[in-house]
Amino acid sequence: MFKINENYLKLPGSYLFSTIGKKVAAYAEAHPDKRLIRLGIGDVTQPLAPAIIRALHAAVDEMGSRETFRGYAPDLGYDFLRTAIAENDYKSRGCDISADEIFVSDGAKCDCSNIQEIFGQDNRIAVCDPVYPVYVDSNVMAGRAGEWIPEKEMFSNVIYMPCTMDNDFVPAFPKETPDMIYLCYPNNPTGATLTKAQLQDWVDYANRVGAVILYDAAYEAYISEENVPHSIFECEGARTCAIEFRSFSKNAGFTGVRLGFTVVPRDLKCGDVSLHSLWARRHGTKYNGAPYIIQRAGEAVYSPEGKAELKEQVAYYMKNAHVIYEGLKSAGYTVAGGVNAPYIWLKTPEGMDSWKFFDYLLETANVVGTPGSGFGPSGEGYFRLTAFGTYENTVEAIERIKKL
Amino acid sequence: MFKINENYLKLPGSYLFSTIGKKVAAYAEAHPDKRLIRLGIGDVTQPLAPAIIRALHAAVDEMGSRETFRGYAPDLGYDFLRTAIAENDYKSRGCDISADEIFVSDGAKCDCSNIQEIFGQDNRIAVCDPVYPVYVDSNVMAGRAGEWIPEKEMFSNVIYMPCTMDNDFVPAFPKETPDMIYLCYPNNPTGATLTKAQLQDWVDYANRVGAVILYDAAYEAYISEENVPHSIFECEGARTCAIEFRSFSKNAGFTGVRLGFTVVPRDLKCGDVSLHSLWARRHGTKYNGAPYIIQRAGEAVYSPEGKAELKEQVAYYMKNAHVIYEGLKSAGYTVAGGVNAPYIWLKTPEGMDSWKFFDYLLETANVVGTPGSGFGPSGEGYFRLTAFGTYENTVEAIERIKKL
Repeated sequence: MFKINENYLKLPGSYLFSTIGKKVAAYAEAHPDKRLIRLGIGDVTQPLAPAIIRALHAAVDEMGSRETFRGYAPDLGYDFLRTAIAENDYKSRGCDISADEIFVSDGAKCDCSNIQEIFGQDNRIAVCDPVYPVYVDSNVMAGRAGEWIPEKEMFSNVIYMPCTMDNDFVPAFPKETPDMIYLCYPNNPTGATLTKAQLQDWVDYANRVGAVILYDAAYEAYISEENVPHSIFECEGARTCAIEFRSFSKNAGFTGVRLGFTVVPRDLKCGDVSLHSLWARRHGTKYNGAPYIIQRAGEAVYSPEGKAELKEQVAYYMKNAHVIYEGLKSAGYTVAGGVNAPYIWLKTPEGMDSWKFFDYLLETANVVGTPGSGFGPSGEGYFRLTAFGTYENTVEAIERIKKL
Repeated sequence: MFKINENYLKLPGSYLFSTIGKKVAAYAEAHPDKRLIRLGIGDVTQPLAPAIIRALHAAVDEMGSRETFRGYAPDLGYDFLRTAIAENDYKSRGCDISADEIFVSDGAKCDCSNIQEIFGQDNRIAVCDPVYPVYVDSNVMAGRAGEWIPEKEMFSNVIYMPCTMDNDFVPAFPKETPDMIYLCYPNNPTGATLTKAQLQDWVDYANRVGAVILYDAAYEAYISEENVPHSIFECEGARTCAIEFRSFSKNAGFTGVRLGFTVVPRDLKCGDVSLHSLWARRHGTKYNGAPYIIQRAGEAVYSPEGKAELKEQVAYYMKNAHVIYEGLKSAGYTVAGGVNAPYIWLKTPEGMDSWKFFDYLLETANVVGTPGSGFGPSGEGYFRLTAFGTYENTVEAIERIKKL
């Protein structure tokens, strides 16, 4: 008789955003007269930029003509896109990353969750706490996280690195030595950043202890301050210890378009084996490339028109972030994030727990956010709002919260 | 120090089609005057049908307007597509499959290779031999295949079911009892099919021994004979033992567009645990849905215009299959497949080994095919040609082979 992967049964409850979705749907059904404003999930609301729409139409036309039709894409991505990425995201910042170290995919979520496959079963992972749930859940499924400890809301074999107001959301090096360290900066959910010096410390630490850093830079387009690195490859020594994940979801509004990439430098090795070759083998065996028309849309992100239009789009969301940040502050909330990231991380008032505050906001202000405890035990007592709504809704949501 | 997944190192050589690609590139570079005809990889050559192009343009326009823009898709696929699939591919054939048992994805290759994740580590897999390499390779990576035995060209823990001319390419039930059985019909690479009665025997066998059948029906659109089932769910009892994979790559030319789906019936269980819930959890955690515009293209496949246009497209390729089949036969080759499948499977002449015949065809006829031994040890002495070229090239390739 066939057996299932029992590790799946260790996952507590459902995926955070499914739970929120169900709660919100139930409230909306019971109160059809209320107009909900959703600042919960990090989904964008602005339409694709005109330069991207033009590129999509042009590529669709190519697919309709025998002379220009394209079948299977190269597993690792078309050269035109990999080259544009290498030039614009790396060489222009002085990072030594070449086009053939870039693996194009259908999004950072897939890559972040699949990357653990190329690592050994007995590696120990370290994560920030609170954290984007995918890093831990994908390792639970692989049997690398140990057992769920309900009273701690932690997995027995995961090293949690608390990030709270007390340490400005910058984790300390853990007491136990990890093999795989997940870092996400600008951070989801706290909106915190590392300075270049702080990230350099992590790179040095990883090289010293022989750990690999899995660096999620999905929100780099939101960085507004000078001393905040956009890529881990701005740090010296990162080529021997880091893998970086990037997304087109937040800088170009591709949440429903699906495009991302992962950088695996050729110098990253375990003994003689390069992780680049392992990831290439995974892509070749289990993936068939991102759609041609969508890779052309990705290319348009780097065109002069695309860049100009997307700069405006990011500015639009950051104006929302400013509205939320300043509005909540003036209403007496303790607030973080929102300066280099589209997320605002607030302390719940009067020590209310995160889910209680979720219900309170939903029921009294009809505003949907994300309870901090959904991201890990150190998120308890915090709450996330996103800047990805429309400006009008964002202003109204904050007005409603101010009136509570 | 972090460790890698050592199972990756057990994979012998590179992915079959990468090896072929390199050999062909080297030949082309050395002989720039020769015009190669590629009938190797199963990639389509006809442009997307007009109905699909129209749907893509319309969806792109929706993404460019604030009122109709769509962000994250539902993890499991948009209802409009799941419903179209359930109606057209299942209900119309009398299969009891509902829309919520359909999981939309970016292609059958991903699903076929990812599905093993939800199964236990110590399950034994059985595969036809020869076989599409992805089934075995994905299990090797997961550590389920045992060790590579070079002299046998087999993995120690995989049950191989030989399919040769001697058994009309229909495998016998294996001596050892498997937990997971991969079946692909119409078959890649042999082009063979099972009758409904033969497939029913496999369903009964799986239910009897407690195995799950992983049924790859990527080529069902090429079935021309009446008694050949298009879906395993045409068989009684399949809801308790089968998962089915489908692709839009070959029926609609989506190899570079990327769309597929997997059917996991709710009755398929291991004890209390439904595989439907495990696969849903995997999708929710590691996947972010297929692109909206591409799901709209998938919907157009089921429109009256789409159906009519794609029927013609399939007929075009099947005319090629006929040219290859009859041409080789008249030239004295022993040929199989090509009637319900876009693949022609031939015996190499004079007992030549498969790679030797590959080189011979490449060098003397400048025709690229796929060596049978690349699909497994029982493929030795066979060779695959595909019907996915243009008609003109196909005719010329066969003329060249006839002249050898």
